[in-house]
Amino acid sequence: MDRRSFLATTMTSGVIAATSGAATSVAAAEMDVSGLTKANIPTPALVVDLNAFEANIQKMADHCRQAKIGYRPHAKTHKCPQIAKRQVAAGAFGVCVATVPEAEAMAAVGISGILLTSPIVDAGKIGRMVALASGGGKVMLSIGHPREAELLAAAAGAAKTQLDVLVDLDVGDKRTGILPGESAVELARQISRSKNLTIKGVQAYAGHASHTIGFEARQRVSREAIAKAVETKGLLQRAGFDAQILSCGSTGTYNIDSTIEGVTELQVGSYVFMDVDYRRIGSRDGNAVYSDFQPSLTVLTTVVSATHSERVTVDAGTKALDTTTANIPQAKNRPGLLYAKNGDEFGAVNLEPGGKLPAIGERLEFIVPHCDPNVNLYDRIYACLGDKVEAIWSVAARRENAAGKI
Amino acid sequence: MDRRSFLATTMTSGVIAATSGAATSVAAAEMDVSGLTKANIPTPALVVDLNAFEANIQKMADHCRQAKIGYRPHAKTHKCPQIAKRQVAAGAFGVCVATVPEAEAMAAVGISGILLTSPIVDAGKIGRMVALASGGGKVMLSIGHPREAELLAAAAGAAKTQLDVLVDLDVGDKRTGILPGESAVELARQISRSKNLTIKGVQAYAGHASHTIGFEARQRVSREAIAKAVETKGLLQRAGFDAQILSCGSTGTYNIDSTIEGVTELQVGSYVFMDVDYRRIGSRDGNAVYSDFQPSLTVLTTVVSATHSERVTVDAGTKALDTTTANIPQAKNRPGLLYAKNGDEFGAVNLEPGGKLPAIGERLEFIVPHCDPNVNLYDRIYACLGDKVEAIWSVAARRENAAGKI
Repeated sequence: MDRRSFLATTMTSGVIAATSGAATSVAAAEMDVSGLTKANIPTPALVVDLNAFEANIQKMADHCRQAKIGYRPHAKTHKCPQIAKRQVAAGAFGVCVATVPEAEAMAAVGISGILLTSPIVDAGKIGRMVALASGGGKVMLSIGHPREAELLAAAAGAAKTQLDVLVDLDVGDKRTGILPGESAVELARQISRSKNLTIKGVQAYAGHASHTIGFEARQRVSREAIAKAVETKGLLQRAGFDAQILSCGSTGTYNIDSTIEGVTELQVGSYVFMDVDYRRIGSRDGNAVYSDFQPSLTVLTTVVSATHSERVTVDAGTKALDTTTANIPQAKNRPGLLYAKNGDEFGAVNLEPGGKLPAIGERLEFIVPHCDPNVNLYDRIYACLGDKVEAIWSVAARRENAAGKI
Repeated sequence: MDRRSFLATTMTSGVIAATSGAATSVAAAEMDVSGLTKANIPTPALVVDLNAFEANIQKMADHCRQAKIGYRPHAKTHKCPQIAKRQVAAGAFGVCVATVPEAEAMAAVGISGILLTSPIVDAGKIGRMVALASGGGKVMLSIGHPREAELLAAAAGAAKTQLDVLVDLDVGDKRTGILPGESAVELARQISRSKNLTIKGVQAYAGHASHTIGFEARQRVSREAIAKAVETKGLLQRAGFDAQILSCGSTGTYNIDSTIEGVTELQVGSYVFMDVDYRRIGSRDGNAVYSDFQPSLTVLTTVVSATHSERVTVDAGTKALDTTTANIPQAKNRPGLLYAKNGDEFGAVNLEPGGKLPAIGERLEFIVPHCDPNVNLYDRIYACLGDKVEAIWSVAARRENAAGKI
């Protein structure tokens, strides 16, 4: 897709979803972006640099094509149908999602091949996923506990709906999934006793590998974790299951996991935006900065107080700049300025050697420490070329927004 | 207001605001709460215990009445018009707000006496505040820098609108405001050169005092900070300004600042909800737990993975439980269970001595570490009596929601 058609796609979809209903089609005119620039949109604002963003989309597409591996990018990162559509257009199988509202928001814009990677164990959420499948949406669930299998089988049976299922494996991060090996095979047998559920393979998210610093160390951790999934996939096949899929990987391990025999698709997420946490894990060629993908996501802020000679205050605190990880926001193109938390509404920007303190009213952009929870703080993303706003994208699947469901 | 009329108020307002428009009046039927309980609402969910919440509202009202001091509670804590209305009904002057969308959301439900405590320095936001005042809303702004004064004077003059103003003082937390003393008097002189702006007093938020642990230490820090504001208010009066208001205080210093001669109103916020951060600052009578107000706000979660013998996984990670401060979420009524961060989507719950690990599908509630940013993660609050949902309140002023403004 060339620049012109890409922009045409994104610009016609510069819409905001209403809170209620699955509508993502509020008239574009309501969110007219003409005249909007980084100088006049209200701050704090979530901004995407379209050049960096497009390059990231393309680079992952190229990598997977060359590596002959599939990918189903994780939409938990962006919760944004416009971005998901762009990923699918570039060659992704579909998208992974972490929540039912995300699944609903993606299905609402016609995205097929939606894999829910999180366990769900309550009747309401299970019913909503079955309803998506019954409505003709192509959805797949991952199951990591006998109780999940029991509930899903009952709901799918009652609705006379067929669902594809992956066995979710805990390959070391102790978060979700069943232990690999015989436990997983036993769970698969239970699942397959339901006529409505079909085993398609395994999922193995190695959260402990994705942010391991240093390529060699990261490769070691990821290979060790994924080996368990490869082995379990083999066990399932030998037990007679048509287990073709092994879904795993992250932005940190995309070029590791895609070389492992048996892996069929990647669940990469952060690559579209990048963040400070990922920038520091180091690249394959030994660079301390992980520069495989470009930081495209920033929070635009305004200097609102300038009383002191060594610091100013910007209008982005913990409600606007995620600070749940160990890293701090990095001022973009402004060396010598150091962000520090200063409450829920404000951030301090301290002067360091070589820096120049901005004046009141000046705008500063910060690369976010961790992209996923930072996007979750906003309802919209300003997609920019240079300083010009080209489109406004809706973070339509943010928490309770999607489909207005209670 | 008795229980019956209180519930009548809250239940008729169990509505969700649409994303676009200032409408907070989507038909209540759309959010029918009949049959909803803590056992069946989708998790993670933000829940308020109405008994504890009401007691907190009442206790602050009683305290201020007995101390003969005013209060203008800070709506940045809840961003919720239904809660603001309840605070005003209990005797508050109005509400403080931290953002322009908050001001708009509060004005939209008829709340008067809105004080914007944050500095704003861009034409769009200033224009929106002037528009609120022009529309008959009673709003007041706080100004801490000559540039703010210049921009506001120009906008108010162009709109031929009168605005009341407090001089925002930096009394020690180096966040916003001008330095107390002669700098503040000079700023007041500049402000008063505009026919459209009227000095009403000073604002002095001592963020460094609010969470000081131990009552005596907290009192020392707060008295030292507020003394500067009292002195500056005196300077303004002697310079001829009708500076009657001194607005300051927090949930941590409400019973300190209300005893300081010259303070006229409190900006208390967190008292309606409480949180782990405030629970640990200690009370006046020497208790380690600050029990002046009751924890009313929790995040309801579901155990979604139970693969290991020493821990389970709940469906609330950094996107659902604010972890931007040093404290961790506390399991409510479940001793021996310790929450630990486990990514954006999930939390680990580890077994401690004396605890009993919950089963998959069980629901656990957690008292939040810090209430303000935690509310900011949600669009709605489930107001409950026991396990029953009595109303759903809209977090209508969450970031870009209010008025659908770009």
